[in-house]
Amino acid sequence: MAERLSAEARKQALGGIPDWGEISGRDAIGKTFVFKDFNEAFGFMTRAALVAEKLDHHPEWRNVYKTVEVVLSTHDAGGVTALDIELARAMNAIAA
Amino acid sequence: MAERLSAEARKQALGGIPDWGEISGRDAIGKTFVFKDFNEAFGFMTRAALVAEKLDHHPEWRNVYKTVEVVLSTHDAGGVTALDIELARAMNAIAA
Repeated sequence: MAERLSAEARKQALGGIPDWGEISGRDAIGKTFVFKDFNEAFGFMTRAALVAEKLDHHPEWRNVYKTVEVVLSTHDAGGVTALDIELARAMNAIAA
Repeated sequence: MAERLSAEARKQALGGIPDWGEISGRDAIGKTFVFKDFNEAFGFMTRAALVAEKLDHHPEWRNVYKTVEVVLSTHDAGGVTALDIELARAMNAIAA
C-alpha cells in the first residue's frame, strides 16, 4: 500500500507538478483546471478517469461547464501518497 | 430561452422524476446517484455528458468513486427550467 508522504516529501513532489497546492484543513492536494468549454473539460475527465481506473486510485472532482476542481488524497493512508502525485502528474500531462 | 418554472410547476415536474429534490438555499434541483463502483459511476457521467452536450445544458456535478452528486439549474433563467427537468429525466433513465 502507498505510504503517506512526509510534509517535506510532499512539498518536494508538489514542486514538480505545476499549479497543484495543499488543500487547507485536509491532508490532500488540489488543482482547478479551466478549459475552453464543456467538451474539453469532459474530454480531460474521460482521459483522467481511464488513468485513475488503471491506477485503481480515484479523484474527488467537481465539474461545472468548463471548470474541473480536483482533490487528491489516499483514503487508506490518511493523506497524500505517491499515488496522488502520480495521478496529479498524469492530469497535468493530459491537460497540457 | 427556457423560462424559469413556477414553484407549482417545479413541484409537479419533480413528482415525475424519482429521488430528485429541491436544493436548500438555491433555485435548483439535485440528486445523489450511488453506483457499484467507479466504472459504473463514470460510465453514467459519460452518457449523461453526451446528453448534456446535445441539449447544450450542463450539470454541476461532483464525483467521488462510486457516488455522483448532481445539481441542476439554468443560469440564464436564474432557476429551474424545463431543460433541467429534461436532463434530470435523462439521467434517471441512464442510471436505471
